[in-house]
Amino acid sequence: MRAEVLAVGTELLLGQIADTNSSFMGEQLALSGIDCHFQTKVGDNFDRIVLALRTALARSDAVLVCGGLGPTQDDITREAIAAVMNVDLVRDDSVLERIRAMFASRGREMSPNNARQADVPRGAEVIEQRTGTAPGLVCPVGNKVVYAMPGVPYEMQEMMDRAVLPDLRRRAGEPAVIVSRTLRTWGLAESALAELLEPRVEALSRGGQGVPTIAFLASGIEGIKVRLTVKAADGAAGAAALDAEESLVRQVLGEVVFGVDDETMESAVGSLIRGRGWRLALAESLTGGLVASRVVSVPGASEWFAGGVVAYATEVKGSVLGVPSGPVISPATARAMAEGARTLLRAEVGLATTGVAGPASQEGHPPGTVFVGLSIEGGESEAIELRLPGDRERVRQMTVISALSALRRRLLAPVS
Amino acid sequence: MRAEVLAVGTELLLGQIADTNSSFMGEQLALSGIDCHFQTKVGDNFDRIVLALRTALARSDAVLVCGGLGPTQDDITREAIAAVMNVDLVRDDSVLERIRAMFASRGREMSPNNARQADVPRGAEVIEQRTGTAPGLVCPVGNKVVYAMPGVPYEMQEMMDRAVLPDLRRRAGEPAVIVSRTLRTWGLAESALAELLEPRVEALSRGGQGVPTIAFLASGIEGIKVRLTVKAADGAAGAAALDAEESLVRQVLGEVVFGVDDETMESAVGSLIRGRGWRLALAESLTGGLVASRVVSVPGASEWFAGGVVAYATEVKGSVLGVPSGPVISPATARAMAEGARTLLRAEVGLATTGVAGPASQEGHPPGTVFVGLSIEGGESEAIELRLPGDRERVRQMTVISALSALRRRLLAPVS
Repeated sequence: MRAEVLAVGTELLLGQIADTNSSFMGEQLALSGIDCHFQTKVGDNFDRIVLALRTALARSDAVLVCGGLGPTQDDITREAIAAVMNVDLVRDDSVLERIRAMFASRGREMSPNNARQADVPRGAEVIEQRTGTAPGLVCPVGNKVVYAMPGVPYEMQEMMDRAVLPDLRRRAGEPAVIVSRTLRTWGLAESALAELLEPRVEALSRGGQGVPTIAFLASGIEGIKVRLTVKAADGAAGAAALDAEESLVRQVLGEVVFGVDDETMESAVGSLIRGRGWRLALAESLTGGLVASRVVSVPGASEWFAGGVVAYATEVKGSVLGVPSGPVISPATARAMAEGARTLLRAEVGLATTGVAGPASQEGHPPGTVFVGLSIEGGESEAIELRLPGDRERVRQMTVISALSALRRRLLAPVS
Repeated sequence: MRAEVLAVGTELLLGQIADTNSSFMGEQLALSGIDCHFQTKVGDNFDRIVLALRTALARSDAVLVCGGLGPTQDDITREAIAAVMNVDLVRDDSVLERIRAMFASRGREMSPNNARQADVPRGAEVIEQRTGTAPGLVCPVGNKVVYAMPGVPYEMQEMMDRAVLPDLRRRAGEPAVIVSRTLRTWGLAESALAELLEPRVEALSRGGQGVPTIAFLASGIEGIKVRLTVKAADGAAGAAALDAEESLVRQVLGEVVFGVDDETMESAVGSLIRGRGWRLALAESLTGGLVASRVVSVPGASEWFAGGVVAYATEVKGSVLGVPSGPVISPATARAMAEGARTLLRAEVGLATTGVAGPASQEGHPPGTVFVGLSIEGGESEAIELRLPGDRERVRQMTVISALSALRRRLLAPVS
């Protein structure tokens, strides 16, 4: 069973609103084990909606359409589907009555335009509207099917769950599910990860039910993701296959895997600090509060995050953090900032950033030169040098995850 | 001239990442006066990418492809385009050299996989890579054209601006330009802005060349945007029409307009502070460094930004900022934090945030209760209460722009 998605609306093509509906439908189809190979956006134009529907039906068994079911003149999805089915539209009295009742319950009169929402292509089934005024439609086209849903996200989502997915699963007759798990990494380039895992990817390449696939995805400050996906008879079998594959991949990649699915680098660091009953203090120069803002986004951060100092002006490094005078872009300043933050904020762990975001060089260092300072109670403080590519904003973003990653590695290292 | 967009990546179909690239490309095509009737997403599968390319070329004159140009085994956009062109791939030595140099400048070795990124379909032109490793491609197919760009948003955007849009406009051969200007506002809801400008929108509704259109776009922390767009014979005529329209709109909206195009609230605040030869100090509780990170993103911020304290733990407010004990979510604490930051960091302007991000209430205040503290040399310090809607992340984001807006209004106010 192959399905595809067609999102209708000129505003989608113009980039005025993001097409989040297709993403939701794609995710739900995958979770139901139904392949989705194409997703298309088309404007509010009769001929082009008809063409898009026919193109989709030529490639797939089912088409999920959202949008264009509203009451205005540019809502023409109903007409386009009827043309593809080669039938006329029939006004459905019980749908009309429901729309009238919905308006009445809000103390409003139904406008004549709204009656159009009760038009149904002859031979189509109605998916009763529960949250909005437009019903959904299940429209047979030969041995294939077109589902129409409203473009309002929560109306569409409710109809997907209640009617469309169950109907699709029934037609597919397949009990299979597709499940996936994402391992998040930091410290190796995407190409290096791919090379390390190449033998495994190769071994898996024959594919089939129960055999996972591996994909790579660079996600900026979220790290580089390694996604494991498997089609299995049920959720338990899928989870078992993912468990086995995750363990193999972790053996190859080791410590560069810092989290699974929604686990961020900052939450990984937080778990390590909280586990020791410690607290974190920050001193940020070039990142200017970005590290702190990531840290406070971790639920429960107040248990292990004391606070931070944004030491942007050079004299603030001295007056507030007690950094001795000398070059600002240096290992010594990074270490002194981390120590100063720990002392000022009375924390066991100090993390600091200093460096050149660009575009100009500073103290003879090119943009992208960054020093991360680490200071941990009972240990020597240290500084790590980074050389980061990209513009000012990217250097900052990469410094955030690199600094948190350096702290994670230090906290994981066996105490010497 | 008709163009369409093809986004490549299985993760897009699975809904694991949102396809923001297509939205950006659609918007840019519209601004260039080029019709875009279809946008398609397809997975990392050779046969299906080929089919999607052929389908798009059957409907349109140009196809903009993004994604699938990376170094890993699942990056096969190059191969698919070569198949559609019916040519082989040739390794481009100068591209290879550039990739090698890019790795060398980061002190790393180029892996063999990365060499694939130098493969170019015979007869295609290379769009030089400036920010990443993969070059873009301009690929003639009969009298039509396929452009390939990387899926990393900032790499794609840079290539669109520099190479793809100019090439498309040249092929389109249309002398008209479409220019737009965005006025950024804060302080009125979108519906209130729309009501104030309704007579003007009405007057413009007949449209045509030289007559601007007005559109509204809520953009979160970037404010609510009022976009003026006009189609004109050339850039100068367009700019003149926009100047006239901007002046009319500003007369209606007044001080809620804080910037134009890329001018942010933080850059508006920066201009006002720098103009007085002052410096800014921050004290952040619930925003946890977000205000500081916005401020340091303003070019030249070091001239007017001293630094900040992220006072996340309650005792830090006392020990570092000298805030007297008492309720943390209060006007008094907000004022004391702003004063404490000014004193500690030796600055003329102090701005502070304290409040409840949620999800739980705090000190009896519901989530969204926020106090902004302002302290300016030679004036009384003050606190402003905000009640913000939304979840934890949204409350934080809205606090950032609201706090900066409050400071802007205070700096604009005539000295009493």
